[in-house]
Amino acid sequence: MKVVAISGGIGGAKLALGLDRVLPPGALTVIANTGDDFRHLGLHISPDIDTLLYTLAGLDDPVRGWGRRDETWTFMQALERLGGETWFRLGDGDLATHVERTRSLDGGATLSAVTAELAARLGIGSAIVPMSDAPVRTRVETDEGWLDFQHYFVRRQCQPRVVALAFEGAASARPAAAALAALADPELAAIVICPSNPYLSVDPILSVPGMAEALRASPAPVIAVSPIIKGQAVKGPTAKLMDEIGLVPSAATVAAHYGSLVDLFVLDEADAGLDLGTQMACVSAPTLMRTLDDKVNLARRVLKLAERAT
Amino acid sequence: MKVVAISGGIGGAKLALGLDRVLPPGALTVIANTGDDFRHLGLHISPDIDTLLYTLAGLDDPVRGWGRRDETWTFMQALERLGGETWFRLGDGDLATHVERTRSLDGGATLSAVTAELAARLGIGSAIVPMSDAPVRTRVETDEGWLDFQHYFVRRQCQPRVVALAFEGAASARPAAAALAALADPELAAIVICPSNPYLSVDPILSVPGMAEALRASPAPVIAVSPIIKGQAVKGPTAKLMDEIGLVPSAATVAAHYGSLVDLFVLDEADAGLDLGTQMACVSAPTLMRTLDDKVNLARRVLKLAERAT
Repeated sequence: MKVVAISGGIGGAKLALGLDRVLPPGALTVIANTGDDFRHLGLHISPDIDTLLYTLAGLDDPVRGWGRRDETWTFMQALERLGGETWFRLGDGDLATHVERTRSLDGGATLSAVTAELAARLGIGSAIVPMSDAPVRTRVETDEGWLDFQHYFVRRQCQPRVVALAFEGAASARPAAAALAALADPELAAIVICPSNPYLSVDPILSVPGMAEALRASPAPVIAVSPIIKGQAVKGPTAKLMDEIGLVPSAATVAAHYGSLVDLFVLDEADAGLDLGTQMACVSAPTLMRTLDDKVNLARRVLKLAERAT
Repeated sequence: MKVVAISGGIGGAKLALGLDRVLPPGALTVIANTGDDFRHLGLHISPDIDTLLYTLAGLDDPVRGWGRRDETWTFMQALERLGGETWFRLGDGDLATHVERTRSLDGGATLSAVTAELAARLGIGSAIVPMSDAPVRTRVETDEGWLDFQHYFVRRQCQPRVVALAFEGAASARPAAAALAALADPELAAIVICPSNPYLSVDPILSVPGMAEALRASPAPVIAVSPIIKGQAVKGPTAKLMDEIGLVPSAATVAAHYGSLVDLFVLDEADAGLDLGTQMACVSAPTLMRTLDDKVNLARRVLKLAERAT
């Protein structure tokens, strides 16, 4: 039984971790958003891939909610003294990932190969695959003009009002070979769209020509888990952004957004009975993942739903 | 009164610090060896410039004897786990210097400009100037073949037997403009060759076409301080290297090596009366610099000798 998960950063990585813990090594392929990637201080940073790497390796910081546990910040302090750019916080241990990745990419390796190597070094049994080896960059049109994603997300802390989103480079990109291979695997039993931001994390992945087609072409059921509970995002700017682009922040809006791409939509139990206003099949489940048990339980539930849907 | 110091790393930086503390801000220009520079993990590392920066900024680690005080090593630990190259130890705070330098150089800045900016940020009153903005790379021919300097010095810990030295790129390099300007300054009162390794630290500087000529053209006296005391190097591989290339490890050999370039040679008091076998003027002084007072006292002594020699 093989499973593909489509994931952005922190929210998606929670369910990816549950799936990783429930499935045998090698069964799970996580296709990660790289629209948030950027070059910063000369380093190639892939925030969502890193969140997945650290989360699946058990290196994530459970208190801060991002980055690595037991992290130190000496680099940032020294950089600040040198007048360097410090708005994007890079921990000392985290830096090793960026330095190694940048060195490998500059040496001609693909992002897929670098990511596979990092995952192997960290002892991760699941595959983590970038959506594409080509650069696709999320840009955000706001009331202050166009901003690169991290400038919107981290530097400006999502404060500017969003007008539109663009995924630069998507038109000429193609899915990473390992992503297409995982989606075409005859043993594929489920495609899980994790509870990531549909507009900022999942849409960049689906914007790569051939990716949505590969999802549709697979006989495996596509199951999406809502990132919106009772009109609120568990974390991050999803609800604010939906409101700004004229959408009602609700699980129903997300379901309608995915539309026919999704076979089954998983609502949080708090939203049970919500009128999705669509013909999509839906079920409710406890989707709030605070503990590892929550993650494992939701993963089990989603895999069971996939079995039934087949 | 202006002073130029010619310096490599740790040994030279001690006297440079003494001079920096004795002279008013702006009076001292330290011309630094960049033959040890290399690209490592995608970063441009300038070990001797960094030693000078940290030493003059009071950020050097007095216990370890290299790098920054209050340093942490989380990056190295994380890099090791990722299978990265860990033979060259990069502290977390030290990394900020390399990342900022690399970013600036890749953006088109000269090494002179980057170094001046770093020194300014660290509140250093003296000028630290690379010997050249062009790459000059020390290579070491050993019984194991040719080695890049840091591979010889750090990775192999100076264990291979040295046959010869080469300064790649020197022939087509030219001195940094600020180095030439400092040497041509009509107010220049002394040129001090610090007690650095003559072959590995000072020779690369003098190998840049125009540098030795600028020293000779200056009316200021050139005063060299011996890095060899009683046939031993205070630190590092100077004596071992001299022995390997067929030279007697002695202050007299160093004096003969500098020859007519130097007007006055400062021996350690332990070597007082040593027959230099040359017509060079020489004096003895306490050259072992353990404390800041030792450094300041030797700096004062050297400056006084320069006054008399003028």
